[in-house]
Amino acid sequence: MARGLYTDLYELRMVASYLKRGMTGPATFSLYIRPTPERPWFIAHGVDSVLDFLDGFGYSDEDLTFLRGLGFDEATLSELAKMDPRGEVWAVPDGTMVLANEPILEVTAPLPFAQLVETAVINLVQLPTVVATKAARIALAAGGRPVVDFGFRRAQGLETGVAASLAAFVGGGLATSNVEAARRYGIPAVGTMAHSYIQAHPDEISAFRAYAEDFPENTILLVDTYDTLEGVRNAVVVAGELREAGHELRGIRLDSGDLASLSRQSRTILDEAGFPDVQIFASGGLDESGIADLVGVGAPIDSFGVGTDLAVSRDVPAVDIVYKLVAYNGRPVSKLSTGKLTLPGAKQVFRVAGGIEDDVLGLRDEDRPGGLLVPTWRDGARSESFDAAAARQRAAEALTALPDPLKKLERFESPPTPRLSSRLEDLARA
Amino acid sequence: MARGLYTDLYELRMVASYLKRGMTGPATFSLYIRPTPERPWFIAHGVDSVLDFLDGFGYSDEDLTFLRGLGFDEATLSELAKMDPRGEVWAVPDGTMVLANEPILEVTAPLPFAQLVETAVINLVQLPTVVATKAARIALAAGGRPVVDFGFRRAQGLETGVAASLAAFVGGGLATSNVEAARRYGIPAVGTMAHSYIQAHPDEISAFRAYAEDFPENTILLVDTYDTLEGVRNAVVVAGELREAGHELRGIRLDSGDLASLSRQSRTILDEAGFPDVQIFASGGLDESGIADLVGVGAPIDSFGVGTDLAVSRDVPAVDIVYKLVAYNGRPVSKLSTGKLTLPGAKQVFRVAGGIEDDVLGLRDEDRPGGLLVPTWRDGARSESFDAAAARQRAAEALTALPDPLKKLERFESPPTPRLSSRLEDLARA
Repeated sequence: MARGLYTDLYELRMVASYLKRGMTGPATFSLYIRPTPERPWFIAHGVDSVLDFLDGFGYSDEDLTFLRGLGFDEATLSELAKMDPRGEVWAVPDGTMVLANEPILEVTAPLPFAQLVETAVINLVQLPTVVATKAARIALAAGGRPVVDFGFRRAQGLETGVAASLAAFVGGGLATSNVEAARRYGIPAVGTMAHSYIQAHPDEISAFRAYAEDFPENTILLVDTYDTLEGVRNAVVVAGELREAGHELRGIRLDSGDLASLSRQSRTILDEAGFPDVQIFASGGLDESGIADLVGVGAPIDSFGVGTDLAVSRDVPAVDIVYKLVAYNGRPVSKLSTGKLTLPGAKQVFRVAGGIEDDVLGLRDEDRPGGLLVPTWRDGARSESFDAAAARQRAAEALTALPDPLKKLERFESPPTPRLSSRLEDLARA
Repeated sequence: MARGLYTDLYELRMVASYLKRGMTGPATFSLYIRPTPERPWFIAHGVDSVLDFLDGFGYSDEDLTFLRGLGFDEATLSELAKMDPRGEVWAVPDGTMVLANEPILEVTAPLPFAQLVETAVINLVQLPTVVATKAARIALAAGGRPVVDFGFRRAQGLETGVAASLAAFVGGGLATSNVEAARRYGIPAVGTMAHSYIQAHPDEISAFRAYAEDFPENTILLVDTYDTLEGVRNAVVVAGELREAGHELRGIRLDSGDLASLSRQSRTILDEAGFPDVQIFASGGLDESGIADLVGVGAPIDSFGVGTDLAVSRDVPAVDIVYKLVAYNGRPVSKLSTGKLTLPGAKQVFRVAGGIEDDVLGLRDEDRPGGLLVPTWRDGARSESFDAAAARQRAAEALTALPDPLKKLERFESPPTPRLSSRLEDLARA
C-alpha cells in the first residue's frame, strides 16, 4: 500500500497549487507541542515510526484514480505519481525528554513533499509521546515499585494498543499484558487470571486450586470476585497447599474497592498466616494521582497494574502538537494570530549540564554545545534508528535527572518553556 | 497474519488451564458499557470489525513458537494450533443507540475461544462507539448545521484515525478531511488550505489570489493567519475579483480567537461588501459545548470543523466497557464485588414504541417484541454485515427519536439504564 492518501484533503489541494506555481523550493516545518498545563515535560516518542512512514510515502495507481475522482487534474496527478521521499529530517532520539515549544522533529524538503506528510507526521508522534509521557508520570508516582501496562483492551484501536504498550514500556513500564507487543518488541509479558476464570469454576477456592495446580511456579490469585477479604483467606488456604507441594504462592491481586484499606488488611492476613513474601498487586482504575495517594499513605502494595488511564492517557488524550512552516526558500516565516506565535527558522534545542530547566531554543546553525536534534533521515535513507531499549534507557535517565520542581504531578499554570537564544529572539523580532 | 496474539497474557494462561481441565463447554460473554455520567447514551459501532476479527482468529507457527518461549506446554500449543473460530455472536447493528448496561454484543462459544477474544472484542468496539457517540453529541449541538471531521492528525494512531473518521461519519458528521477514510468508506472529503499556504506566499492576499485562481469553484479562504478582520477584508477583495471572472467565493474559515464575535464582524463585512452568500466556517478547539454556546448566542456560522475533541473524544476518551461471563455450561453466573454487579444469563434488549427511555433488559429467550440484538455470526460465517451508510441512517433516526431530557449535553449524575424484566430480576436474585 502506498501511503500518500494518509493525509488531509487540504494538503493535496495546497500541493496541487504549489506544483502549478512551481513552488517547490525547500521548506522547513517544525513539530512541537504547545504549552500544556497538565504536562510540564514530555517523553518524545514516535520518531522512528515517522521515518518508516516517510520511507514508504508515495502514490499507487489506485490512489491516483481516487484523486482523479476528487477533481485533481492530470498535471497534478503526474507530479504526485513521481513524488519520491525527499528531504531531510532532524529529530530528537526517541525517549528524549522535551519541554513545550521544543521541536521534536523538523522536516526540510521540497514544499510539496513536506506539506503532504504533515497529517501523518503529527499523528505518528502524538500517541507514542502522549502515552510514554503518561507512563513516566505513573512511574514517578510509583516511586520505584514496578508498573505493569494492562491497557490493551481500552486503547483506541488494535494496532494503537500495540503502539501504546511500546510507549508505556519506553516511558517506564516494566512489563505488559499485551502479548503481541511482547512478541514484537521483546517487552516482558505478564498476566494470570480474570474474574471469569473464578466464575467458570464452581466456587472461588476451586478456581484458586485449579490455577495453582496448573501454574505452581507463577500463581497470582485475583481475590475480589465475590468478597475480597474472604478471597484473601481462600488464597491463604491455597498458599498453604502450594507450600506443602514445595511451591510458594507468588501473590494476590486486588482489582476493586478501597485499595489502601484492603491492601493493609490483606497484608495482615497474609503475614499472620505465615506468608510475608506473598506479594500484593493492585489494579483497577488507577492513574498517577491514585498511585501517588496509595504510596503516600504507605499502602503495602508491591506492584501496580494500570490500564485505561495509561493506554489512552485519559486526562490528556491529545496535546496541541503542531507542524509549522518556519522557513521557505531560505526565508524564515512566522505566524502572528491571537496567542499562537510561531517562531521563525530551522531550530536546535541546546541542553547543557544544568539540565532541562536551562534549555535554550536557538537556530540550528548556532555554534553552541548540547544540541538535542540530530540528522536522522535524508532522501529516503536513515542515518539513525531508535530501538525501544535505548529509548527506554534515555527516558529513565531523564527522569532520574529531573529537577524536583518538575516532578510535581499537579497542573502548572505556566508550564516551563525553553529560553530563546539571542539570535532567535532577534530573528523573531525582525 | 494470525490474530491469536492480539490478546492479554492472562487470557492465554486461563485458556491453558481450561484446556487441561476439559473446560470447553459453551460460555456466554456479554459486552456492555457501565454507567458513565458524561454519556447518557451511546451510538454502538464496531460490531462489523469484531466479526472481521473473529473470522481471522487463529495461531500461526510463528505465534506458537513465541508462546512456547513464554512457557506454554506442547499439549496447550497443539490445542491452540487447531483453534478455529467457533460459536455464535448476537449483536445490535452498528449505529444502534444503546444505554449503559445494555449489551452491544454477546459471544456464545466454547469457553477457551470466547475467553481468548475478550481483549480484541472490547478494543474493537470501544473506539468506534466512543467516537460515534461524540459525533452524535456534536451533531445535536450544531442543530442541523453541517459538522466536518478534521481530527485525523490528532487521532491516536494512523489506522485509528481512519476508524475514527468512519465513526464520526456514522455518528452524524457530514464530511471528513481524511482522504484515506474518504476513499475506503465513500465519505465526502473536504479541505482547502492551512496557514502554511498563506505563509509560503509573499503575503496573504497573494495567497488568496493564487488559491482562487487554482480552485475558482471551491475557494474557502483561511483568514486568521495574521489579523483576522484584515484577512476578511482581503477575502472580500478576492471575492470581487472572482466575481468579475464569473465565480463566487464559497466561504471563509475562522480558526482561532473569539469565534462568536469574529463571525459577527466577518458577516457584517461580507454582507456590506455585497457577499451575503459567502459562508462562514469555524474551527479551532471546538467541542459540543463550544458549538452549543456559539449556536446559543446566534453566531452566524454556517458549518463547524471539529478535530481533536472528536477524534479522541477528549472528555471521555475511554469508557468502562466490559465483557463479562454471564453463563457457562448452561449455568448462569454473576459477580458481586463492590459496586460491580454482573447480571446473569444471555440477554436481549427490548425496545418498543415508547422508545429508549422504556427499554427493558431481559433474557434472550423471553417472548417479547422489539429485541435489538440479532444473530450476526456463527462458526465463522456471517449472517449480517453492517455498512457505514446503514449505520449512519440508524444513528440519525435514533437522534431524531431521542426524548428531550436525553438531549442534555451536561453530566447525568444517574445516567439512565434499562428496567430489568421480571424474569431477569428473579434470576439475578436466585
